[in-house]
Amino acid sequence: MAHNEVVEIRGHLIDTAALSRVLNDVDEYGGHYVVEQFDIGQGPTGPSYARINVSAEREDTLQRILMRLQIHGVNQVDPGEAEVGVADMDGVFPDGFYSSTNLVTQVRIEGRWLPVLNPEMDCGLVVDGVGAATEVRTLPMSDVRAGMRIVCGASGIKVTVPVSTKEEGTFGFMESDVSSEKPQAVLVRQVADGMREAKDAGKKVLWVGGPGVVHTGASAAMVSLVEAGYVDVLFAGNALATHDIESALYGTSLGVDLARGQGVEHGHEHHIRAINTIRKAGSIRAAVEQGVLTSGIMHSLVTHDKRFVLVGSVRDDGPLPDVYTDVIEGQRAMRAELDNAGFCLMVATMLHSVATGNILPASVPLVCVDINPATVTKLADRGSSQARGIVTDVGLFLEQLAMELSPTYRRG
Amino acid sequence: MAHNEVVEIRGHLIDTAALSRVLNDVDEYGGHYVVEQFDIGQGPTGPSYARINVSAEREDTLQRILMRLQIHGVNQVDPGEAEVGVADMDGVFPDGFYSSTNLVTQVRIEGRWLPVLNPEMDCGLVVDGVGAATEVRTLPMSDVRAGMRIVCGASGIKVTVPVSTKEEGTFGFMESDVSSEKPQAVLVRQVADGMREAKDAGKKVLWVGGPGVVHTGASAAMVSLVEAGYVDVLFAGNALATHDIESALYGTSLGVDLARGQGVEHGHEHHIRAINTIRKAGSIRAAVEQGVLTSGIMHSLVTHDKRFVLVGSVRDDGPLPDVYTDVIEGQRAMRAELDNAGFCLMVATMLHSVATGNILPASVPLVCVDINPATVTKLADRGSSQARGIVTDVGLFLEQLAMELSPTYRRG
Amino acid sequence: MAHNEVVEIRGHLIDTAALSRVLNDVDEYGGHYVVEQFDIGQGPTGPSYARINVSAEREDTLQRILMRLQIHGVNQVDPGEAEVGVADMDGVFPDGFYSSTNLVTQVRIEGRWLPVLNPEMDCGLVVDGVGAATEVRTLPMSDVRAGMRIVCGASGIKVTVPVSTKEEGTFGFMESDVSSEKPQAVLVRQVADGMREAKDAGKKVLWVGGPGVVHTGASAAMVSLVEAGYVDVLFAGNALATHDIESALYGTSLGVDLARGQGVEHGHEHHIRAINTIRKAGSIRAAVEQGVLTSGIMHSLVTHDKRFVLVGSVRDDGPLPDVYTDVIEGQRAMRAELDNAGFCLMVATMLHSVATGNILPASVPLVCVDINPATVTKLADRGSSQARGIVTDVGLFLEQLAMELSPTYRRG
Amino acid sequence: MAHNEVVEIRGHLIDTAALSRVLNDVDEYGGHYVVEQFDIGQGPTGPSYARINVSAEREDTLQRILMRLQIHGVNQVDPGEAEVGVADMDGVFPDGFYSSTNLVTQVRIEGRWLPVLNPEMDCGLVVDGVGAATEVRTLPMSDVRAGMRIVCGASGIKVTVPVSTKEEGTFGFMESDVSSEKPQAVLVRQVADGMREAKDAGKKVLWVGGPGVVHTGASAAMVSLVEAGYVDVLFAGNALATHDIESALYGTSLGVDLARGQGVEHGHEHHIRAINTIRKAGSIRAAVEQGVLTSGIMHSLVTHDKRFVLVGSVRDDGPLPDVYTDVIEGQRAMRAELDNAGFCLMVATMLHSVATGNILPASVPLVCVDINPATVTKLADRGSSQARGIVTDVGLFLEQLAMELSPTYRRG
Repeated sequence: MAHNEVVEIRGHLIDTAALSRVLNDVDEYGGHYVVEQFDIGQGPTGPSYARINVSAEREDTLQRILMRLQIHGVNQVDPGEAEVGVADMDGVFPDGFYSSTNLVTQVRIEGRWLPVLNPEMDCGLVVDGVGAATEVRTLPMSDVRAGMRIVCGASGIKVTVPVSTKEEGTFGFMESDVSSEKPQAVLVRQVADGMREAKDAGKKVLWVGGPGVVHTGASAAMVSLVEAGYVDVLFAGNALATHDIESALYGTSLGVDLARGQGVEHGHEHHIRAINTIRKAGSIRAAVEQGVLTSGIMHSLVTHDKRFVLVGSVRDDGPLPDVYTDVIEGQRAMRAELDNAGFCLMVATMLHSVATGNILPASVPLVCVDINPATVTKLADRGSSQARGIVTDVGLFLEQLAMELSPTYRRG
Repeated sequence: MAHNEVVEIRGHLIDTAALSRVLNDVDEYGGHYVVEQFDIGQGPTGPSYARINVSAEREDTLQRILMRLQIHGVNQVDPGEAEVGVADMDGVFPDGFYSSTNLVTQVRIEGRWLPVLNPEMDCGLVVDGVGAATEVRTLPMSDVRAGMRIVCGASGIKVTVPVSTKEEGTFGFMESDVSSEKPQAVLVRQVADGMREAKDAGKKVLWVGGPGVVHTGASAAMVSLVEAGYVDVLFAGNALATHDIESALYGTSLGVDLARGQGVEHGHEHHIRAINTIRKAGSIRAAVEQGVLTSGIMHSLVTHDKRFVLVGSVRDDGPLPDVYTDVIEGQRAMRAELDNAGFCLMVATMLHSVATGNILPASVPLVCVDINPATVTKLADRGSSQARGIVTDVGLFLEQLAMELSPTYRRG
Repeated sequence: MAHNEVVEIRGHLIDTAALSRVLNDVDEYGGHYVVEQFDIGQGPTGPSYARINVSAEREDTLQRILMRLQIHGVNQVDPGEAEVGVADMDGVFPDGFYSSTNLVTQVRIEGRWLPVLNPEMDCGLVVDGVGAATEVRTLPMSDVRAGMRIVCGASGIKVTVPVSTKEEGTFGFMESDVSSEKPQAVLVRQVADGMREAKDAGKKVLWVGGPGVVHTGASAAMVSLVEAGYVDVLFAGNALATHDIESALYGTSLGVDLARGQGVEHGHEHHIRAINTIRKAGSIRAAVEQGVLTSGIMHSLVTHDKRFVLVGSVRDDGPLPDVYTDVIEGQRAMRAELDNAGFCLMVATMLHSVATGNILPASVPLVCVDINPATVTKLADRGSSQARGIVTDVGLFLEQLAMELSPTYRRG
Repeated sequence: MAHNEVVEIRGHLIDTAALSRVLNDVDEYGGHYVVEQFDIGQGPTGPSYARINVSAEREDTLQRILMRLQIHGVNQVDPGEAEVGVADMDGVFPDGFYSSTNLVTQVRIEGRWLPVLNPEMDCGLVVDGVGAATEVRTLPMSDVRAGMRIVCGASGIKVTVPVSTKEEGTFGFMESDVSSEKPQAVLVRQVADGMREAKDAGKKVLWVGGPGVVHTGASAAMVSLVEAGYVDVLFAGNALATHDIESALYGTSLGVDLARGQGVEHGHEHHIRAINTIRKAGSIRAAVEQGVLTSGIMHSLVTHDKRFVLVGSVRDDGPLPDVYTDVIEGQRAMRAELDNAGFCLMVATMLHSVATGNILPASVPLVCVDINPATVTKLADRGSSQARGIVTDVGLFLEQLAMELSPTYRRG
């Protein structure tokens, strides 16, 4: 093996199986390893330490392994300086660019460790400024411009994995499991605690929602949570907003008569008329101000001056005038709202949950609630390792959450 | 077509699609039909009437079609007398035996229409006694004895389909649909109303449950419903009772620590020890009386003098001493509890739900709650057409139901 | 009831349950009906006829009911002339606009019945030209411009429901059911027959695919079907193309090593590098021409001069340079490929399947294959009533289909 | 901590995460640990070694932890002698009985290590004979008799975990994952290889099947595999056999017309007539010999002198005369067929798969095929850690397997 590098990792390597994953990854990426030193921590709280010599036949394979290992918090013992390349085309990174994780990351430039300003996965790292003013930030591929300075290879980079909250933390409840067979009342309380902690710390609670929120009759619960101050930002698509507005205007939600609890199969022209009505008003806020829209989730967000970002999809009708039809612009608008986020709840949507998981730093606690186990599994598969999943009924879950958090909420 | 018979049907033939199903069935069973008369009802409430000439190449095909049509309430215009054969072997019906539905059924013997005493699907009809003392009852195949008189063919039989509760009834909520996207709070209330109606009418509320009731942390809610008088009989397997008892003895339920909400993977020897403990006591009731078992669902059933039937399955450990290990004997014990049942709730079990659906008359309202849509679908597929399905989280559903029905219930 | 209209419907009203649905819809939309005449067809092939007087308290309710009934092929006995309004804002239809179905539709303008040129659901109908040159076409809401003449209300409109292929047709296989318990080999053959029929009739076979096509190892089968001429157009998102290209460049597909059949958890930077490589080349076609991309589905489409439309979503990384990032522009590009489509197969994608179902005329046979029953159900729920669903393994299904249709295909 | 014991474990502790599970289990069972020595293996093949001091407040807690750890292959450094208690009631183990794993196990009696003859999980260990004739075997709780000598506590017991086949073995294909997104063709081939290996070694191939085998149209494929010698024993319930026989007698399978591929909703009296026919013949074999049953899976098993064990369940109609209605007797019959099993394939049944997993030694390779991921997950959750899951279409999977293994098989 012509190429090798010595790396190290510290933390709960055994009981969290972190070391297993590190060694498996080296193996699967075609590298080899020798564990040069291993000091096991004592008891459930003592940290362990491992120093590993990683080698590969080719230099680029080695670099890819080293980048890969950083997801687990493995850094080079002697990281050296970051290598910086220059983009020579708009929208294209230099070959060998460093593909970022969503973990806390530092980059060594001219002997100084600089923090990456906004951790996000699958981005490049762009270096701005010079000397003392040098800054490093993540940059999505579509935003790179020719001439930008981009970090390449794995040298000069250090990531920090969040300390596992396994033992005492709020979100230890589903360490490695997605299941519907869990005591649900406990889970509701844990989510409520997470939201309270975020608010107490002066941080924002971010929601990501799908139309199931409306279809399951949970609108009143969510409105109550908006009023109680536990919804600062909502990321959603055209569907949630449309069915919420359809429900406010016509009392139906894509064929479900919410008062009677009976299905109205394919009541679909209601939603297209609802969209037309809002387009005529100019925007959701304008419809509220003109007295056209007088109830529902979107109305509540507007009247309580909360933020929402609606991003369209190829299946949309209309869409509502507030919807970003360009998905890359939509991603930018979502990123702009992440600042100071302290908790994220994803409810009943796979598309927007994965989209938010892609851009959210790993340091933000993240809970995903869906009746479909596949949504939660997919989220974790895509790299949002901090995601905790609750497989349950969305309508009943939000009811319970409203009863926990909103003193005035009364079941319909 | 050498063989034919004229049949008739009355009711909401169009808006409930009953007539469609009748004609499709004739077609699929290889018969032919001519609609001789059709009087359409006016408005949503007026009944329609159809007279149909059904024919087939062979007499046995015709008889099978006629039997088949009876599950839709289609009877012969001129039903004649029932044909009665004699079983010549134990456990075997005569060829051409009438296979029963779970609908209200009458059989014409010696010129008199006799009610079938205990409608159940997939049974034979046995004729007991003579003259004025003649009785007709359903009989499962395994209980037939040589010499018994068994109804054969479709002549002399009349079934009555329950009037659709579509317009105003309690259980119109899911006419033809199984979905998780329903306003759940309304459904909870409808189930509560159904249970109250049954109790007000002096009837029993029958529960069928799987271990998910315990795993989802709903034991306290169910205990509260037992105390409030809304659980008269419980049908279950070894698993629900075992995990309930394991939870009472050890605080865990197959690897779920219910207080912390964390999974204990494979905590399985707890359940085998719990079973051993009850076997040592002699029975669940004995364990309660000896002070060994002091809490949980089974404890609550015993102390409130409620009934339970536990029937085993091939995957059981132990089992508990109260479990019927012979499934045919278990079915008999379940049948013995059906008398005066006024409402049936099935929760988190496919096996016992299908088993109960097999023996329950169609006149008993039936609601099936499961997080898995397949359970509900399968139940309806097997012929329990009165089944209404709710796809939701079992734990939260039972919590909500307890809050509706039990004045003293407080969320854990 | 101040407002009423007499409508009529012809066809297999009973055995297809069409009449049930019509009457239920009147009821659910708050109207009333009297069936003035009903002539029942004889046998499975004779058509029935119904004339129904529909009434409602308000004129706009009546108009909505009438529009709604057209989904079922119910037309006014005396349809009169279409009412035409004028859009006074870009992107907004006049109030009371006719919301289109995806059925064959005619509009009566100045005494002449004009065909709607491109049936699509949830659009408006725009009237172009005057006199003999008058044309009517569907128009999505986002494309309406101030001054356009738009059909309003339900007068002067006639829709034709496709004759049910129930008795003899190719796609009668799943009349009203979605299930994994079907003889799969028969279904494979029926899809193959449908594709052959389309090609024999000189029509295009349209595919809609998700990344599961690649993940399940079915790329070779699909390439073989491209080569055999059974893939004319592919609608997909960034994911299918990216994972196909990743697989061609690196031999992995989002963490699945296809040769060994082992999972490589989170191998995700491979896909981001694959995208960067194609962006550097300029386009997928350019990458093929430069020799960068030499195998896989996208390569095969390029080298056989087949069409593809890739439309982005909010969760996309990159994306590939060929991807429409504006979803409304993407929808336009998809519409432009629908002309002369004779068969549509949807495989392993809910998002793009629903999107395609939204714009496809009901006259195009449509089969949806997915391991998840929810995808198929959702498609039908959104109004693609012609959709037939097959719940099966996508990889094995495409293998079998390739063995049916491609003489040279050999299992890997 | 008053009570403690020193244990040790050897093997791939890190890359298989075995050590993580051990330490977590101590923690979750309320114990404490100190890792006294840890020698890490070098590279993917070198074994590691750990010596751990485990302690607990109470002696019985410590014993339970020690028993628990044995499922991971952790043994006491100084195991001492096994403690033997005497059962004082039929069907009840002594308190503190050792609850067995399905791993290779040895027990030290009078200074000698004796092998446990038939490893099975959740049983007791009974000691028979004395002196040189002493034997130890597993015993299910229901078979214990007063006076039997039963191993208690964790002393004097050593278990051996099978060496992981991760690197080169046949069944490394799904190490820790259940997914439908796998290259299916590879998986088919791996199962075929596993069956060939078992036959080459002179061992039996055991099948466990549900009625989905018939419903998905895979009967012909399975018959072909019986004929080719790859089905030695079949474990199933009443349903598989009934629907197979119904299909042979009537051409339908619970409402699925297999030739046309169309659903016949609720064709249920066919199955009850099929059962009656076989009951009349006396048994399935008798029906074959009388020429009543002339095709299908059961026919094929009988004519090729293969074994089958059918065990009933509470939802059964009939049942067939060959069905064990007592589930404990059924379990005994299943155990009697396990001898010399070399491969086990479970197809489309959760109930019988879990039942078989309960009694199968961990040394038998086990693959579970189902379209429902929950079945596979549940199997692993119950302790069958050697289970490998394939989420795919059962019908197409068996077709492909028949094409691999049966030279004469031709797709229907």
